[in-house]
Amino acid sequence: MASSNGLSLQEIADLVGGQLLDFSDCTQNDSDSSQDAARGKSPSDETSAMICTGAAPPVEAGSQEITLIDQANHVGQLSNSDAFAVIAPEYVAASPIRLQILVDDPHAAFTQVVSHFRPALGNSMPVSGIDPTAKIDSSSDVHPSAVIGADVEIGPGCYIAPGVTIAAGCQVGAHCTLHPNVTLYAYSQLGERVTLHAGTVVGAHGFGYKMVDGRHVPTAQLGYVVIESDVEVGASSTIDRGTYGATRIGEGTKIDNQVMIAHNCQIGRHNLLCSQVGIAGSCTTGDYVVLAGQVGLKDHIALADGVIVGAQAGVMDDLAPNQVYLGSPATPQRDQMQIMAVQRKLPEMRRDLKRLTQQLNRLSAAAENQPTDAGHRKAA
Amino acid sequence: MASSNGLSLQEIADLVGGQLLDFSDCTQNDSDSSQDAARGKSPSDETSAMICTGAAPPVEAGSQEITLIDQANHVGQLSNSDAFAVIAPEYVAASPIRLQILVDDPHAAFTQVVSHFRPALGNSMPVSGIDPTAKIDSSSDVHPSAVIGADVEIGPGCYIAPGVTIAAGCQVGAHCTLHPNVTLYAYSQLGERVTLHAGTVVGAHGFGYKMVDGRHVPTAQLGYVVIESDVEVGASSTIDRGTYGATRIGEGTKIDNQVMIAHNCQIGRHNLLCSQVGIAGSCTTGDYVVLAGQVGLKDHIALADGVIVGAQAGVMDDLAPNQVYLGSPATPQRDQMQIMAVQRKLPEMRRDLKRLTQQLNRLSAAAENQPTDAGHRKAA
Amino acid sequence: MASSNGLSLQEIADLVGGQLLDFSDCTQNDSDSSQDAARGKSPSDETSAMICTGAAPPVEAGSQEITLIDQANHVGQLSNSDAFAVIAPEYVAASPIRLQILVDDPHAAFTQVVSHFRPALGNSMPVSGIDPTAKIDSSSDVHPSAVIGADVEIGPGCYIAPGVTIAAGCQVGAHCTLHPNVTLYAYSQLGERVTLHAGTVVGAHGFGYKMVDGRHVPTAQLGYVVIESDVEVGASSTIDRGTYGATRIGEGTKIDNQVMIAHNCQIGRHNLLCSQVGIAGSCTTGDYVVLAGQVGLKDHIALADGVIVGAQAGVMDDLAPNQVYLGSPATPQRDQMQIMAVQRKLPEMRRDLKRLTQQLNRLSAAAENQPTDAGHRKAA
Repeated sequence: MASSNGLSLQEIADLVGGQLLDFSDCTQNDSDSSQDAARGKSPSDETSAMICTGAAPPVEAGSQEITLIDQANHVGQLSNSDAFAVIAPEYVAASPIRLQILVDDPHAAFTQVVSHFRPALGNSMPVSGIDPTAKIDSSSDVHPSAVIGADVEIGPGCYIAPGVTIAAGCQVGAHCTLHPNVTLYAYSQLGERVTLHAGTVVGAHGFGYKMVDGRHVPTAQLGYVVIESDVEVGASSTIDRGTYGATRIGEGTKIDNQVMIAHNCQIGRHNLLCSQVGIAGSCTTGDYVVLAGQVGLKDHIALADGVIVGAQAGVMDDLAPNQVYLGSPATPQRDQMQIMAVQRKLPEMRRDLKRLTQQLNRLSAAAENQPTDAGHRKAA
Repeated sequence: MASSNGLSLQEIADLVGGQLLDFSDCTQNDSDSSQDAARGKSPSDETSAMICTGAAPPVEAGSQEITLIDQANHVGQLSNSDAFAVIAPEYVAASPIRLQILVDDPHAAFTQVVSHFRPALGNSMPVSGIDPTAKIDSSSDVHPSAVIGADVEIGPGCYIAPGVTIAAGCQVGAHCTLHPNVTLYAYSQLGERVTLHAGTVVGAHGFGYKMVDGRHVPTAQLGYVVIESDVEVGASSTIDRGTYGATRIGEGTKIDNQVMIAHNCQIGRHNLLCSQVGIAGSCTTGDYVVLAGQVGLKDHIALADGVIVGAQAGVMDDLAPNQVYLGSPATPQRDQMQIMAVQRKLPEMRRDLKRLTQQLNRLSAAAENQPTDAGHRKAA
Repeated sequence: MASSNGLSLQEIADLVGGQLLDFSDCTQNDSDSSQDAARGKSPSDETSAMICTGAAPPVEAGSQEITLIDQANHVGQLSNSDAFAVIAPEYVAASPIRLQILVDDPHAAFTQVVSHFRPALGNSMPVSGIDPTAKIDSSSDVHPSAVIGADVEIGPGCYIAPGVTIAAGCQVGAHCTLHPNVTLYAYSQLGERVTLHAGTVVGAHGFGYKMVDGRHVPTAQLGYVVIESDVEVGASSTIDRGTYGATRIGEGTKIDNQVMIAHNCQIGRHNLLCSQVGIAGSCTTGDYVVLAGQVGLKDHIALADGVIVGAQAGVMDDLAPNQVYLGSPATPQRDQMQIMAVQRKLPEMRRDLKRLTQQLNRLSAAAENQPTDAGHRKAA
C-alpha cells in the first residue's frame, strides 16, 4: 500500500524514540549479539536520510518499507521480507535486514509508524449518501441509501445496493456487486468483478487482546482487507482486517455464507470455502484448497496447495499438498477412515477384550496348576 | 410458479436449438435407445403446439411445465414428476415423460427456458422507497428506509422494518414481520404470518461452481426461495435460492439464529432447526424433524419424518424416521452412546491390551518350554 | 429494571385471576401441602396493599419485586431470590417466599405481570431518524440513516453508524460505538464503552416453542438484553433476549464474530468467546472463561470461573473452575489428550486384538490337548 508521505529512517527513529543502527558490517549469525550490537555503526547521513514509504508485516513489506520483529527468535519471519529496515526489541544478529531501529516495545513503535502511513480514520460518515471526496465512476450504480465515505474510489460498472456502507479510504474495482447491507470498514480493497452477498462484513477489528490489570485490552488493529479479483463471498460472512497489514483473499477464491476469516489470514487463489467454515488468525492457504462445511482451522496454520478438508474437521497442524484430510484433529483420509471404521467397532472390541482376559486368566490358572501336576508327577 | 407468457413445445425446441421428439409409441424400458430414438416420431402439429407454462426441476414441475434430466441414468428423478415434457441430452428410454427435447447441454438449455419464464432481474432498485409497480396492502406498515422493488406484492397487516430490502418480484403474504436489515432477493415468496429476524438473508446465490480452465465459474442460480406460512427464522440466518426452482421451508417450521440452508433444500413442516445448523445443498427433511445446535448435513441427504439429531452431529447418510441420532458421523443414539462410553475407556483398554499381550507371551513361552520338558521327561 | 407503575399484591392477584395467600405462619418444609394451604391466611390489608415494582425471574428479582415458580419441585430456584412474593401453581411449602399468588398457569400469569411492568412495544419505528421522545446526548454522533425509537436514551460520546436500528426503550451508555447495520431490539441496555461491530443483532426473540395441536407455538419472549461496560462484540453475532428477564453479558467480556448467545444466558465478566461459538439457552459462565472457536454449550450448563474450552468442543455438563477441557463431549484436557492419543492407534489396537485372539486360541487348543497327553502319560 504505497503512500506519498514518506519518512526518513531517522525520522522514524525519532518518532518512536528508538535508536537507528547499521549492522551491515557485523556478521549475520547467532553469535554474541551484545558485542555485535556494540559494533553496530551509527548510520551514515545517507542511510539516515533513506526514505521509507510504508510499514508492513515482514512478508508484505516492499523494498522501500520498514517492518518489525517482536522477538529476536522470530527472525525466521524476516527471511522472505523485502523490507530494507526493521524495528526490533534488540539487535537481531541473524536478521538479513541490517538497518535496525531498536526500541523497548516493537508493537507500540510499529503502531506509531503504521498510523503515520495509514492514519486511523474516525467513524464519522457523510451525512447523506456519498462523501464529496469519493470518486465514483459514472457507469456505476450506487443506491441512494448506501453511504460512501471520504476518499473512496469505485470503478466502472459496479452495483452498490441499498444499505451498503463503504467507509473512508476503500477501493472498489470494476464491475463489483455489493448486495444489500454489506459493510466495508476503512481501507478495504476489492479487485475487479468481486461479489459480496447481503450482510457480509469486511474489515471489522481482529479479535486480539492483551491482559492488563485483569482486563482484556484490545491490541492495535491497524490493518485492512484485500479481496482480489473474481472473488465471491456469500451472505453474512465476516473477514477481519489485519493487525498491521492485509488480510488477503486470493484471486478467484469463492467463499460461501457465514464463513469467518480472522485477522492476518492469507487465503490463496481459487479456494472453495464452504458454509460456516471458521479460520482463526494468521492462517495461510495455498491455491485450490477446498474446505467443506463447518471446518475449523487453528490459528497460524499453513495449508499447502490443493489440500481438501472434509466437513466439520478441525485442523490443528499444517497440511501437506494435494491430500484429503478428515476428522478432528484433521488426519489424512485413509488413516481417518480406518480410525472411524474401528470406532464403530469399539463396543465389540471392548467385549472381545473382556472375553480374552477371562479366557487368558483361565488358561493361566490352568497353566499354573499344570506345573504343579507335573511336579506331582515328578514327585510321583 | 405459474406464468402467463407460455411457450409451445416447438418454440422451446427452437429457443434451445434442440429436437422435439414424441416417444409415446416406443417401449419405456432400458433396451437399445438408439433404435428407439430412430423410431421417435416427429411430433404432430397438435403436440408441437402444446403450451408449456413454466420450467421447474422434476419434483416441482406441474402438469403444464417442462423439466430436465442431465444424464439418462438420472431417470429416477423423473418418476414422481408431473411435467409433460423433458429436456434431455439423449433419448431416455426409461423416462415416463415421452415428449423429449434432445439437446447437447441440458443445463444450458434449461437455463434459457427458466430465464424465459422467470427473467433474471437486474440488481437495480427504486431510488427511494417503494417501486411504483409494487402492490402493498394499505394496512401494512413499511418503514420509509425499506426499499421495495418492482412488482413486489405485500399482503395485509405486515410490518417491514427499517433497512429491509425486498428485491423485485417477491411476494409477502398477510401478517408477516420482517425485522431490520432483512434482505429478500428477487422472486422470494413468503406465506402468511412469517417472521424473519434482523439481518436474515433469503435468496442469495447458491454455492455452485464448475471448473473451467483452472477457474471456478459460477453455475446458473436461477431459482428462488419459498417460505411457507407460520415459519419463523431467527437473526442472521441465510437461505439460498434453488438452482432452477425453489428452496422450500415447510409450513410451521421454526429456524433459530445463524442457520444456513443451502440451495435446493426442501425442509419439511414443523421442523425445529437450532442455532448454527448448516444444511448443504439439495437435502430434504420430513415433518417434525429436530436438528440441535451446530448440526451439519452433507449435501443430498434425506431425513425422514420425526428424525432428531443431537448437537454438533455430522449427518453423512439418509436417516430413518422417528429415530434419534448422535455424533459425527451421525449414528443411532443407542449405538453412539455405547461408542462414546467405550471411547472414555480407551486409555484403559490400551493398557489392558498391553498387559494381556505380555501375559499371553509369558504363557506362550512357558507353554513352548513345557512340551520340551515333557519331551525331556519322555526322553528321561 | 425499576418501574414507577407499581401494583399492589392484590392488584396483581386480580390481574392474573389468582389467589393471594400469606403462608408466613406455616412451616417451611415438605410436609402435607394441602393441609398447610388450608392454613394459609388470607392476607392482611397491609399485606394486600404492599406495592410490587417489577416482575423478574428468581435470581434477578429485587426485594420489591415478584417472581414465579412453575413447579413446586423447582423450589431450589427460589433459594437465592430477593423477591418478596411469588406466583406459583400451588402452595409451595418449601419456598422461602411466603407470600404466594396461586394460579392455574404460572407462565401465563407471569406473562401478564411482566407485560404490565415492561409493555410489549409495537414494531413501529419513527418515520425518519430519531423519535422525538428519544434523549440523545448532544456530544453523540448519530448517522441520519440510523433509526432511533421512542424513549431511547443515548449517553455522551457515542457513535451510531449508518443503518443502525435502536428500537424503543433501549439505553446506550457513554462512549459506545455501534457499527453499521447493528440492530438493538426493544429494551436492550448497553453500559459504557460498549462496541458492537457491523451486523450484530441484540435482543431478537429466544428460540422457545411449545407444541399445541401439532404446531410449534412461540412462548412469551418478554425479556431483554443487558450488555455491561467495556464489552466488545464482533460482526454478525446474535444475543437473544431473556424469556422474562435479562440475557446478560458481564463487564469486560469480549465476543468475536458470528457468536450466538441464546436466551437467558448469564455470561460472566472478562470472558473471551471466540468466533462461531454457540451457547444454548440459560447457560451461565463465571469470570475469565475462555471458549475457543466453534465451541458449543448445551442449554442450562454452568461453567465456573477460569474455565478454558478448546476449539470445537461440545460441552454437555457443568465444568469445574480453572480447568481446561477438550473434545465433544468436553473432557478434562489430560484425559482427552490420552483418549485422542489412543484413538490414533485404534487400527493398530484392532490388529493386536485379532492377533492376540488367534494366539490365545492356538494356545488354548494346545492346552486342551496337553491334559489329554498328560492323561495319556498318566494312562501310560
